[in-house]
Amino acid sequence: MMTLRFALTPGEPAGIGPDLCVFLAQEAQPYPVIVISDTELLKQRAQQLDLPLNIIEVNPDNLPELPSPEQSLYVWHTPLYEPAVAGQLNTANAPYVLETLTRAGQGCIDGLFSAMITAPAHKGVINQAGVPFSGHTEFLQELTHSPQVVMMLATHGLRVALVTTHLPLREVADAITTERIESVTRILHHDLSRKFGIKNPRIIVCGLNPHAGEDGHLGREELDIIAPTLERLRKEGMDLVGPLPADSVFTPNNLKQCDAVLAMYHDQGLPVLKHKGFGSAVNISLGMPIIRTSVDHGTALDLAGTGEIDTGSLQIALVTAYQIAAANV
Amino acid sequence: MMTLRFALTPGEPAGIGPDLCVFLAQEAQPYPVIVISDTELLKQRAQQLDLPLNIIEVNPDNLPELPSPEQSLYVWHTPLYEPAVAGQLNTANAPYVLETLTRAGQGCIDGLFSAMITAPAHKGVINQAGVPFSGHTEFLQELTHSPQVVMMLATHGLRVALVTTHLPLREVADAITTERIESVTRILHHDLSRKFGIKNPRIIVCGLNPHAGEDGHLGREELDIIAPTLERLRKEGMDLVGPLPADSVFTPNNLKQCDAVLAMYHDQGLPVLKHKGFGSAVNISLGMPIIRTSVDHGTALDLAGTGEIDTGSLQIALVTAYQIAAANV
Repeated sequence: MMTLRFALTPGEPAGIGPDLCVFLAQEAQPYPVIVISDTELLKQRAQQLDLPLNIIEVNPDNLPELPSPEQSLYVWHTPLYEPAVAGQLNTANAPYVLETLTRAGQGCIDGLFSAMITAPAHKGVINQAGVPFSGHTEFLQELTHSPQVVMMLATHGLRVALVTTHLPLREVADAITTERIESVTRILHHDLSRKFGIKNPRIIVCGLNPHAGEDGHLGREELDIIAPTLERLRKEGMDLVGPLPADSVFTPNNLKQCDAVLAMYHDQGLPVLKHKGFGSAVNISLGMPIIRTSVDHGTALDLAGTGEIDTGSLQIALVTAYQIAAANV
Repeated sequence: MMTLRFALTPGEPAGIGPDLCVFLAQEAQPYPVIVISDTELLKQRAQQLDLPLNIIEVNPDNLPELPSPEQSLYVWHTPLYEPAVAGQLNTANAPYVLETLTRAGQGCIDGLFSAMITAPAHKGVINQAGVPFSGHTEFLQELTHSPQVVMMLATHGLRVALVTTHLPLREVADAITTERIESVTRILHHDLSRKFGIKNPRIIVCGLNPHAGEDGHLGREELDIIAPTLERLRKEGMDLVGPLPADSVFTPNNLKQCDAVLAMYHDQGLPVLKHKGFGSAVNISLGMPIIRTSVDHGTALDLAGTGEIDTGSLQIALVTAYQIAAANV
């Protein structure tokens, strides 16, 4: 049996990603976790945080079999272009961030890693550096040649998947097509079954418009696109509820009776998820041949180096990656 | 000092509105509450629910001064066009629903009532009857000749006001204008001060796009419209935070530090409010010369006549109306 082994990318070097890795290092992990990062960056941040850190350098030809010990990090050294200062964005290091993602993603494809866990990147600085980058999910979609990737966030008692993700609001309605609803629903259903081991998952689907269009009085996408697509998929045996008004979906009774909510767009589904799961939500990419989980928060530039951070989301991202990978051996 | 007196409209006669009134009647109220309804409808529904109900008929020339006694309702008889059957919509009664709203609203304008409380109407059946009706709020806006009305929902620890309400999602972005942001923010700020007695209210404002546009990479409305408008209003002394990403607004820390959240559209703000305040949320119309509160739920046609309903939202709608009216004597 292959050793389970995990890649962790700290994301934006001026943000709290390196801090999270240093905090993580303080406790032993149940599996080997390889941080893909500049070693100096981690050492400096540990010093700034006044925390012990023993770095064990590794590389693809020499990957560890033993779990990560306490106060230590396995690091696959990936050099920065310029030294990183906590809180100060620097476009010169944008290619570094992408290189860490490529190493982790390609490592998953090649079987070096069972799954990858990502700390937050800063989209703005990467775009300013001249590289179009709309998010980890989209980057890994391209790397893995996946026709469609679905973003799902999860916390205790609630999973929310999105039909569209990082689109300006005015582009959302046109992106809600029969093809997209169908492919996203299929991926969500498939991955809930296969990656999460849920038999016959039940999915509640939100409408696009307020009150799910109220019989066409507040928009016709429910009648013309969403409802007929769900009806067709139901005939294949999928347990799909909706389209329901988004503001009546998240009741205790509904959440108890479903395995995931499918929202049509980012701010329809994520405010409630992050309210409910504050500090302990995880982002999971579905539809790819690799397993990837992520923290649910941003780079928090102002907190980098201060030590005033909460590792809850990284912890749950790691544990979720461990669980999915262990179930898929 | 004028007697505080309240009007209650049961809304759609085939829905749970009449049931809610019958349940309400079981306990004495601290003020006179006048139900504007067909008396037979209430009697029949009480019989169906097997609950005692003593109807005291009143009219505008003969309004009660004493609080509503237990097992009784003051009723201003307003005849149905056809007998109502629980659960069965009938377009013939659409004008009846509108007449109850007109009586309550005009009664508030004329000083007969201190405030009005509304149970749910069914927009679909009123529109099918040939009367354009996009909601209570819009109807009362016209009746009171208010240039702009703002919908706010509240529950314990959270108030959410909306810049746009019952619009198809594809029309939202174009409705986010400088003028609208400014007028809605002014009304919200004014009514939080005057109607709710909050000194220097602090308002957190959501962006329109995911991640509040992420510096223009995911939409420009934050940079071009929302941020400059808030900046201008701040110079007048308003305490406004944002625009912030909607999915990071509803954290415990943020909610503790603000008096209201201003969301750009319906499904950005209400799913989290109804999740947090399930069964105990109230809808309050701001910007009108009258006080109006409402339940936060729909007509629930399938539950009408069954007795399996929760009066929590009506209770909080009444109490909120009592509180605002008492503070505005």
